[in-house]
Amino acid sequence: MTTVAHEDVRAAAGRIGGLALRTPVFEISPGFFLKLELLQHSGSFKVRGAFNRILSAGELPDGGVIAASGGNHGLAVAYAARELGVRAEIFVPEVTSPVKLAGLQALGAHITQTGAIYSEAAEAAAKRAAETGALTVHAYDQPEVIAGQGTTGLEIAEQTGGVDTVVVAVGGGGFAAGITLGTEGAASPGAVVSPGAVASPGAAAEASGEGPRIVAVEPERIPTLRAALEAGRPVPVEVSGVGADALGASKIGGLAFEILSGPRVESVLVADDAIMAARRTLWQRHHIAAEAAGAAAYAAVLSGVYTPGPGERVAVVVCGSNTDPATLTT
Amino acid sequence: MTTVAHEDVRAAAGRIGGLALRTPVFEISPGFFLKLELLQHSGSFKVRGAFNRILSAGELPDGGVIAASGGNHGLAVAYAARELGVRAEIFVPEVTSPVKLAGLQALGAHITQTGAIYSEAAEAAAKRAAETGALTVHAYDQPEVIAGQGTTGLEIAEQTGGVDTVVVAVGGGGFAAGITLGTEGAASPGAVVSPGAVASPGAAAEASGEGPRIVAVEPERIPTLRAALEAGRPVPVEVSGVGADALGASKIGGLAFEILSGPRVESVLVADDAIMAARRTLWQRHHIAAEAAGAAAYAAVLSGVYTPGPGERVAVVVCGSNTDPATLTT
Ligand SMILES: Cc1ncc(COP(=O)(O)O)c(C=O)c1O
Ligand SMILES: Cc1ncc(COP(=O)(O)O)c(C=O)c1O
Repeated sequence: MTTVAHEDVRAAAGRIGGLALRTPVFEISPGFFLKLELLQHSGSFKVRGAFNRILSAGELPDGGVIAASGGNHGLAVAYAARELGVRAEIFVPEVTSPVKLAGLQALGAHITQTGAIYSEAAEAAAKRAAETGALTVHAYDQPEVIAGQGTTGLEIAEQTGGVDTVVVAVGGGGFAAGITLGTEGAASPGAVVSPGAVASPGAAAEASGEGPRIVAVEPERIPTLRAALEAGRPVPVEVSGVGADALGASKIGGLAFEILSGPRVESVLVADDAIMAARRTLWQRHHIAAEAAGAAAYAAVLSGVYTPGPGERVAVVVCGSNTDPATLTT
Repeated sequence: MTTVAHEDVRAAAGRIGGLALRTPVFEISPGFFLKLELLQHSGSFKVRGAFNRILSAGELPDGGVIAASGGNHGLAVAYAARELGVRAEIFVPEVTSPVKLAGLQALGAHITQTGAIYSEAAEAAAKRAAETGALTVHAYDQPEVIAGQGTTGLEIAEQTGGVDTVVVAVGGGGFAAGITLGTEGAASPGAVVSPGAVASPGAAAEASGEGPRIVAVEPERIPTLRAALEAGRPVPVEVSGVGADALGASKIGGLAFEILSGPRVESVLVADDAIMAARRTLWQRHHIAAEAAGAAAYAAVLSGVYTPGPGERVAVVVCGSNTDPATLTT
């Protein structure tokens, strides 16, 4: 039984309105929309979940907030904390990119660089949180985080007037899970609901209401959702490739898995070179500067891994821009 | 008496719909909108005028279309011609940037590089047009071009629900003139019309209907409109500075001047370093990759040269993205 539902996304929208931006949708051909979530504060959707988690906590502990992330989640928590006047501690692994480290510093976060890889930084953060009592903001596996990310889905439904399909990248799965909940009940005007989209009993029931198809896109080299769907439960995968920076969770989140194993969700995988080609196309054809993870969803369509049917209304989420712009054409 | 009016902009919208994109507006703070026209096909609004000019011509001559431009206008004419299956000849001065030259080549235009500066390339293009009978597409001083650019103004009015003020960059003035016409009659909901905004007799009468204030922004080092307003007629100015690439017309267009000398228009100048600071801010804070000219309008607000009053609803047009992304933080 999931602990987060459509109403939680609506509540999150009320809480974070005025703090997170309502990013634009851009119809680049008839019925084909890009949701430009990379224009969000801090350069990704992650501030939505961060604001919702922090604002849901009521009175904050003296220790402020704490997060582990060498990437967009860390930037988002640091941004949200600064806006709310809260102390933020961010634990980052030693491999963190200079661009993101500089961004964290500029936001005034207290940074601890420790551990060779993400999971070690995360352990150190957990230990520190136990000492200080700081509020932890998880990158994907907390109900408030998923509900916050899901506000993107509410906006897609409103701004497009309804779509048949939303295409979205998956790392730990919080974003796609939130969007699945946020778009519940919001089908395309006049769309035929596919026969698969019926309520099924059991764990996924809360997320199986009607709504657009969710195409959950993962890099071939980080298939956390695909592996979990095959195993029937979250299992660890090897993490590598161009998406590792932002989509590098080694296991799908437990809450996300409950939602993403529902009947509305379709799992697809994209090759690294398709991701990079999509990133180049976004820049050269559409003047949009995305990071690799931010281009993964568009890659699924461009490479033909997901091909919309005739007249199908599709929204593709372009979700991250924290990249060195000099590399946009590589 | 101007030869272009609001109805021409509406007619242009009908003609170019489905060819030019309806670019998004982005509300970055309450009542403060960026019109993201840099996401337009070819990276600037210039395709609007190019499509409208070509489609207004009826049957095209065998020589196809011809234009002189080392910049966004050339890219736009080449793009529009390719989409319409028409031959395009573009005359560019020898100083043209490699990025823009490569873009022209990729679009399949027939390129002639000639003349040390723009006006020499323009003379060569005119001579060639006289020989071949090709349709000339002027960068700013043709009614169809102004009407096409003005469709941006129609969209701003619709997408924002109405604004008090539109802030827009001026080179030869076709864009600002078009937007002045396009926004005619479209004031902010409930806005107080300023006492200056009344019809005046004479040359500017057609452009003096009510509508939002137009803040016409020029680099201090290319003040074509300012100089013309002071002289009472278009006069040549020296061209230099960071905007010269795209805002480098040496004289305001005659048609544009008639419209921009109307009571709704306010002329402001911005320093080159303010333009570059605005470009950096667009990238670092908003993840938008603009060229210098594309950031000039935003520079007027950021630098305080134009300060919106309390509750004033403002749309700033971000209008060009043809830049080397490696230079975004310079
Ligand atoms: C740009 C971008 N896209 C997608 C994701 C994946 O989000 P999630 O981990 O919630 O699946 C991330 C996560 O950091 C991200 O930064
Ligand atoms: C990006 C950009 N902004 C503004 C302008 C100015 O337009 P106009 O010459 O119609 O005033 C141009 C002209 O090329 C441009 O390329």
